[in-house]
Amino acid sequence: MLFSGIGLLDENFDYRTDMFVGVKDGVIAYIGADKPAEDFGEAYPGRGRILMSGVYNAHTHASMTLLRGYAENLALADWLEKKVFPFEKKMTLGDVADGALLAVAEMLRFGTVSFSDMYYYNDEFMRVVGETGIKANFSYGVTCFDERGYEQLPAYEISEKLIGQFHNAFEGRMKIDLSIHGEYTSTPRVVKGLAEHAKDRGVRVHTHLSETKKEHEECKQRRGKTPAAYFASLGLFDNPTTAAHCVWLEDADMDLLREYGVTAASCPVSNLKLAGGFARVPQMLERGVRVALGTDGAASNNNLNLFKEIHCFATLFKCSSGDPSAVTPAQALCAATLSGAQAQGRENAGAIKTGAAADLVVLDAQAPHMHPVHQMANNLVFAAQGSDVLLTMVDGKVLYDRGEYKTLDIERVIFNADRAAKSVLTRLS
Amino acid sequence: MLFSGIGLLDENFDYRTDMFVGVKDGVIAYIGADKPAEDFGEAYPGRGRILMSGVYNAHTHASMTLLRGYAENLALADWLEKKVFPFEKKMTLGDVADGALLAVAEMLRFGTVSFSDMYYYNDEFMRVVGETGIKANFSYGVTCFDERGYEQLPAYEISEKLIGQFHNAFEGRMKIDLSIHGEYTSTPRVVKGLAEHAKDRGVRVHTHLSETKKEHEECKQRRGKTPAAYFASLGLFDNPTTAAHCVWLEDADMDLLREYGVTAASCPVSNLKLAGGFARVPQMLERGVRVALGTDGAASNNNLNLFKEIHCFATLFKCSSGDPSAVTPAQALCAATLSGAQAQGRENAGAIKTGAAADLVVLDAQAPHMHPVHQMANNLVFAAQGSDVLLTMVDGKVLYDRGEYKTLDIERVIFNADRAAKSVLTRLS
Repeated sequence: MLFSGIGLLDENFDYRTDMFVGVKDGVIAYIGADKPAEDFGEAYPGRGRILMSGVYNAHTHASMTLLRGYAENLALADWLEKKVFPFEKKMTLGDVADGALLAVAEMLRFGTVSFSDMYYYNDEFMRVVGETGIKANFSYGVTCFDERGYEQLPAYEISEKLIGQFHNAFEGRMKIDLSIHGEYTSTPRVVKGLAEHAKDRGVRVHTHLSETKKEHEECKQRRGKTPAAYFASLGLFDNPTTAAHCVWLEDADMDLLREYGVTAASCPVSNLKLAGGFARVPQMLERGVRVALGTDGAASNNNLNLFKEIHCFATLFKCSSGDPSAVTPAQALCAATLSGAQAQGRENAGAIKTGAAADLVVLDAQAPHMHPVHQMANNLVFAAQGSDVLLTMVDGKVLYDRGEYKTLDIERVIFNADRAAKSVLTRLS
Repeated sequence: MLFSGIGLLDENFDYRTDMFVGVKDGVIAYIGADKPAEDFGEAYPGRGRILMSGVYNAHTHASMTLLRGYAENLALADWLEKKVFPFEKKMTLGDVADGALLAVAEMLRFGTVSFSDMYYYNDEFMRVVGETGIKANFSYGVTCFDERGYEQLPAYEISEKLIGQFHNAFEGRMKIDLSIHGEYTSTPRVVKGLAEHAKDRGVRVHTHLSETKKEHEECKQRRGKTPAAYFASLGLFDNPTTAAHCVWLEDADMDLLREYGVTAASCPVSNLKLAGGFARVPQMLERGVRVALGTDGAASNNNLNLFKEIHCFATLFKCSSGDPSAVTPAQALCAATLSGAQAQGRENAGAIKTGAAADLVVLDAQAPHMHPVHQMANNLVFAAQGSDVLLTMVDGKVLYDRGEYKTLDIERVIFNADRAAKSVLTRLS
């Protein structure tokens, strides 16, 4: 495909108008102000449109779309124990897949090309989600409240099997990570075992880290160190790791994350809704921590719309830090694109440059709320909305184009998800 | 028009499916589960759609759309003094109208039926905005840094003329309020004069109140009382008043607002972006203050999309108060609809009930992000987006319908606004 005469947000987040971008074999093969001599097939008219890197959702629980709007305005303990856990207990793995497909539909519609997920899966799940064409890092959530070793847990066996069958499947779009759910839901023995497993298999790690003050402080009492220091001491961070939330990190924790190359997946909307607190994002960025963006699950968001996170990320931390110059538009865009791709171990992705994966979105620049244009990066961060996405392309393949899904029967996806949610409720009552 | 078989958010924010709503002579004339016998003309198919009250923007500076994305990531003083004020100084009243029309286009697209504006106007402005069919309360911003009395200010004469010509013009859709810009930009003498003028003419008052900590604390030093107490002591609040922001209100200020029936127009997105602080909205609601929602101008937002404010309002104050049960979906929806209408002195508006003004919006309920539906009010607050608006109706007249503007030449509006912004920049350089 040849994007023709299109506005382009380049890898430095500068805007260049009237550009040509050629995609071939899933890769960005040409970028230039002149029409290329090479034939890239179908021309995509770029007038009034913006081409930018697709966005990467660095932390979600996709299947939780089934709980969207199910539990609201509750204190965290009630939210989890009275609503979320009982609902999840009644979900079958078929429901999990139905919820995930609804999530994929929403993500594609709002420009997400790849997501990092922590939940529960089986083979069938992997197949149906893999066939949508979206990229994803899946990690089976490990919890353990007893004295078993990691390899004695059913999750070990499942993860091992998923790695064997699906790691780098679907032309590399699917990756299997390992996931320790969190410090407070497992034992040092299990953390250590999982860390070694990740090292053995050369896969990445995904965890929750210091999401709530309670979790952070109780860990210090329980382990004599912060959750970050605890995980580091057990070798978890010797693996490339994504740590979700990072709301209560202390300065030394930030330094640890930077040293180990751990990505902090900030989930600002979820943190607001569950009243988790304000992450010290400006300090993380200042200290050189890689910060990516996640939506968390739809029970605590309730969207899977990275553009909402971009806006929140670029405004919220100005206020919480008292510094309106904190978090620049470029930092927000980088968090949603390049940093997300890096967090997933996807080299040469997350930016528009020659040779990079063609994970791209086209946005409409013609609506009133995108005018005038003093600086397009400002409009993209502070004014654009997920619904401005016209087209979502992954590895050079169009998956969504102005309301049309190329790999999903959208009516069926919605019908199945509605039905799955209802059937869980029936089993609950 | 007869909305047929549509989902309905009723005046108690309960959702009723498969309803009929008949609109006649600008008013909601029928609500029922059965098809009415009366003929309401054109049938609007409601399947997969939601009908709710249109949203009311209780505080904006519409013409500042021209500055959208112009000044970002600056400390407040630099933002104002180096960028916003110099730009505004070069704006002609023609530019002001061009900016406002762009604002009206954006607001209609995102379901806003009425807005409260503070800026600078002339007759021509009133005519072109009035003809769009949107409702608006306009107030000419009064500032005074010298010893003149209120009636010696040019703003007095202009406001007096605007009231005479345009108060309740356009079949009552347009109202003229009086606006004291803020405590720190005027003198007691002028506040008193304006308060008396409002009383004489029976019009409403619009002001900024305790937006920043600096403003709030300096007032206490300067006047020996908080801005709210200062305004109350000068008789300003003897008039029906909208006070924008209210970030730094003290408990006694909240009680004052409740006693005087002053509406607090919370502008959460703007407060985040300019790092103004977190309003104590849960406390205001608890103390019985009427709280409405505003976007503020597009220089500090950068959208005029009330659905973004609804989401922010319903999540942000959970986090800032540490209480995830704070601000219910019904409170957020009420702030955006009924409270906004009341703040503008629009009786019998802002809710779907028989006899109320037909200021209505239809939202698409079919997109993936609006499924499943456990409780529609939850989806509307936490998941819906302004772009879900399909139709915006004011006083029974359709002004926006799926991309089509009935009273605006949208291409011309955008062209003129772009041109106006450019011409200001040219004059600036």
